[in-house]
Amino acid sequence: MGKILVLFDSQSQSTRKIAALVAQGAAAVEGMEVRLKGIDEARSEDLAWCDGIAVGSPTHMGGMSWKMKQFWDGQTDLWGKIDGKIGCAFSSSGGWGGGNELVCLSILITLINFGFLVFGVTDYVGKQFTLHYGAVQAGEPRTETEQASPMRLGKRLAQWVAVQVDGRKDLAPGPMESRA
Amino acid sequence: MGKILVLFDSQSQSTRKIAALVAQGAAAVEGMEVRLKGIDEARSEDLAWCDGIAVGSPTHMGGMSWKMKQFWDGQTDLWGKIDGKIGCAFSSSGGWGGGNELVCLSILITLINFGFLVFGVTDYVGKQFTLHYGAVQAGEPRTETEQASPMRLGKRLAQWVAVQVDGRKDLAPGPMESRA
Amino acid sequence: MGKILVLFDSQSQSTRKIAALVAQGAAAVEGMEVRLKGIDEARSEDLAWCDGIAVGSPTHMGGMSWKMKQFWDGQTDLWGKIDGKIGCAFSSSGGWGGGNELVCLSILITLINFGFLVFGVTDYVGKQFTLHYGAVQAGEPRTETEQASPMRLGKRLAQWVAVQVDGRKDLAPGPMESRA
Amino acid sequence: MGKILVLFDSQSQSTRKIAALVAQGAAAVEGMEVRLKGIDEARSEDLAWCDGIAVGSPTHMGGMSWKMKQFWDGQTDLWGKIDGKIGCAFSSSGGWGGGNELVCLSILITLINFGFLVFGVTDYVGKQFTLHYGAVQAGEPRTETEQASPMRLGKRLAQWVAVQVDGRKDLAPGPMESRA
Repeated sequence: MGKILVLFDSQSQSTRKIAALVAQGAAAVEGMEVRLKGIDEARSEDLAWCDGIAVGSPTHMGGMSWKMKQFWDGQTDLWGKIDGKIGCAFSSSGGWGGGNELVCLSILITLINFGFLVFGVTDYVGKQFTLHYGAVQAGEPRTETEQASPMRLGKRLAQWVAVQVDGRKDLAPGPMESRA
Repeated sequence: MGKILVLFDSQSQSTRKIAALVAQGAAAVEGMEVRLKGIDEARSEDLAWCDGIAVGSPTHMGGMSWKMKQFWDGQTDLWGKIDGKIGCAFSSSGGWGGGNELVCLSILITLINFGFLVFGVTDYVGKQFTLHYGAVQAGEPRTETEQASPMRLGKRLAQWVAVQVDGRKDLAPGPMESRA
Repeated sequence: MGKILVLFDSQSQSTRKIAALVAQGAAAVEGMEVRLKGIDEARSEDLAWCDGIAVGSPTHMGGMSWKMKQFWDGQTDLWGKIDGKIGCAFSSSGGWGGGNELVCLSILITLINFGFLVFGVTDYVGKQFTLHYGAVQAGEPRTETEQASPMRLGKRLAQWVAVQVDGRKDLAPGPMESRA
Repeated sequence: MGKILVLFDSQSQSTRKIAALVAQGAAAVEGMEVRLKGIDEARSEDLAWCDGIAVGSPTHMGGMSWKMKQFWDGQTDLWGKIDGKIGCAFSSSGGWGGGNELVCLSILITLINFGFLVFGVTDYVGKQFTLHYGAVQAGEPRTETEQASPMRLGKRLAQWVAVQVDGRKDLAPGPMESRA
């Protein structure tokens, strides 16, 4: 059994909708237990519990929201004791070019700081739409392609957890030409 | 007279098209002399000459292209002698979420390394479309909004050059509500 | 008269000491008015007031502290109305390799988000010691070189404000060989 | 058997020395096969071959060297087919504050682009010396602490390869208090 935490902050509800899709994508991989937690209800125990984590924040002034940062700044008791988890990021911005990739980067840097192994996804999920450094969105995800992106992120997270934590090498994503 | 260099690398011609729009935007500010140079024809003299620079690269593996990096790595003779120029960035990627913001960041970091003052643009140029860290695009710019983004970047570059190099404070962009 | 704000958060007092040195460096340039403000006493008015700003934070989990981020996330009323100020960054980490450059980067990204022009310093202030992306330190600044770094940052900030805001081109830093 | 590639570019030989220490650290974990390759002799086959990779570059103008970037830009045939490898970074700069962390970041971003899982190391290897985003150095590693940093990076890379590729969970690093 792999354990996945989807942790998010959301103000306009766009990031909340993305988070739900990430969780849905993760749950589609067999044997995964998924917790979906908003920043106000997340606890240190959730972080200690999980094998893999997807962290999402609105794009606020080029970085993750202060509330999300406050959560991580507060985990000094766990720091140095939970290395090796698998992590990824997602973010919604007011517009394209508004910093959603940079927010994913700020999240990945914090996860790296905790000793986690972080990743992005090479797959394109639609025309001119990918998630190389995490799932990004301007506003909320409306089209099929926009919804496929966070679902793919959650699925890939669950796949890496299955392969690398549980040794289920049969669940590894194949080379790109065989991923659909 | 302000001097603007628009320096770009391009493989698919998308970044070349964006570069031309940046140059057009810069030239629209009175008193600007603009040079548009592809990476193969750019020289150290162009860099020494300019007051302001916009640097564009395709999004290759999350960073600027190796040819663009080679140009900057080769400017060791100028390094430390040309501080204080004004710089900005632009990039085209294969898709949204593909790293175009990160490439702008890699360019800005290199410009900061040279002692330049770098900026992005707060303005939205259309619905859910901005250029906070430089002008970004998936593929080539087709719509009016997509073309407005690099033009705005070039214009803002020229405005900052006018204000801060030439003391033309009357050319400063006003607060956002008065920018059109 | 140029107006300089040195804004900092500090937990261990290391960043506070660096901030005081930045302020000292800025005040050494003629005609500068300098405000030194801890995060708990800083107000939106300070941000609106200044021509140039140096922002410092301890290195917390690879990014600026949540309290510093909270300050910037709270400036939505000013956002889009104060473009064109000049900004720079400083940070103290627990150790070298611990993320102080990345925290400077996270600060610069936020300042860029506000439309500011940001810079680093090409100068070396001692053997193997520079501040290309802002003044960085492991712990507090003790040696002469370690103290020279934030002072140089403050001085350079004041120089750029003098040159670019006040048109005092005589105060521009010369090429590196003539900087002492 | 885990397969580790240590890939580096070096101009002043500092990064070469760090690379040798990374390789030494990796080889100390049982069952690891290690290849140490300079950028001029590295081939696509090396990249396809490895389970884990450490990539090192001198700090050139805030990013990895153009020759290192050229190598990665040239791997378009492998891109999308080698996801899931484990990666990390190292860099030597002319001075502290000179960008070595940012170069590690530029390397990590490129490795993430390829679908790799990247990591840093939480451990402190000496007083005020760590490698949270990769092993960094000003100049060449001389002191015991400075040499411990790249060795720890190589060891951790080999440990993650052992645990996550080979299922050797007994080789996982324990919580920080038990790491020496």
